[in-house]
Amino acid sequence: MRAALDAAHAAAEADEVPVGAALVHAGRIVAVAANAPRRLTDPTAHAEMLAIREAARLLGRERLEDCDLWVTLEPCAMCAGAIAHARIARLYYGAADPKGGAVEHGARVFAQPTCHHRPEIYSGIGESEAAGLLRDFFRQRRG
Amino acid sequence: MRAALDAAHAAAEADEVPVGAALVHAGRIVAVAANAPRRLTDPTAHAEMLAIREAARLLGRERLEDCDLWVTLEPCAMCAGAIAHARIARLYYGAADPKGGAVEHGARVFAQPTCHHRPEIYSGIGESEAAGLLRDFFRQRRG
Repeated sequence: MRAALDAAHAAAEADEVPVGAALVHAGRIVAVAANAPRRLTDPTAHAEMLAIREAARLLGRERLEDCDLWVTLEPCAMCAGAIAHARIARLYYGAADPKGGAVEHGARVFAQPTCHHRPEIYSGIGESEAAGLLRDFFRQRRG
Repeated sequence: MRAALDAAHAAAEADEVPVGAALVHAGRIVAVAANAPRRLTDPTAHAEMLAIREAARLLGRERLEDCDLWVTLEPCAMCAGAIAHARIARLYYGAADPKGGAVEHGARVFAQPTCHHRPEIYSGIGESEAAGLLRDFFRQRRG
């Protein structure tokens, strides 16, 4: 989660919503990504999506069933769907996101009968730092 | 929808699940994509995602609020989330997908209070050809 949090800090510095993700395979981080829709001019460029795409490319396969994803914020519907498609084994996330999350809120993607893969889910890891980063970011933008 | 259906045919020929998408801006098709997770080694490479990313790149912005998306199959949770993030104005789709769809089935992404943008939605366009393509594809794979 340290790598994911560092990526979230980098996102904030780049004026992107501060969310970071890291993808782990066999105890090794294979991809780290920061949220970057503005920088990449890509509305799908959330940290989770970038980390999954990079890991799939590096490992040379579209199924990542032996990989874990660490992300600083509860994934949205898009990212939860991608996690299911990639067959990620374990999902670790920091802060819950009542406004846009789709794991324990809203679409609850993994709880649907239409979801074909459900990772093990662990939440609240690094939560205070992850949530603090987001709070500071939005406070500063409003201020 | 003709361009999306042609892309779906091309996907089938490339041994990918036959789904196609086209993105229209100002009455002009700006991006057409076929489902390609295997070819691209990318679990997120659904037709809708590729068309949205390509259009955002070409138009030079991450918000596509003046664009319409045509797709041969009901979008999944990942793609519905991406459609919301991209602020697509209108979504036209062909066949309903009770097993994996997330518009009128399962996660019902656009019906959630956590969904921050809801396109106008029109379904059933080109449905029989879109559904027939999928049926033939899966029948052939099983056979």
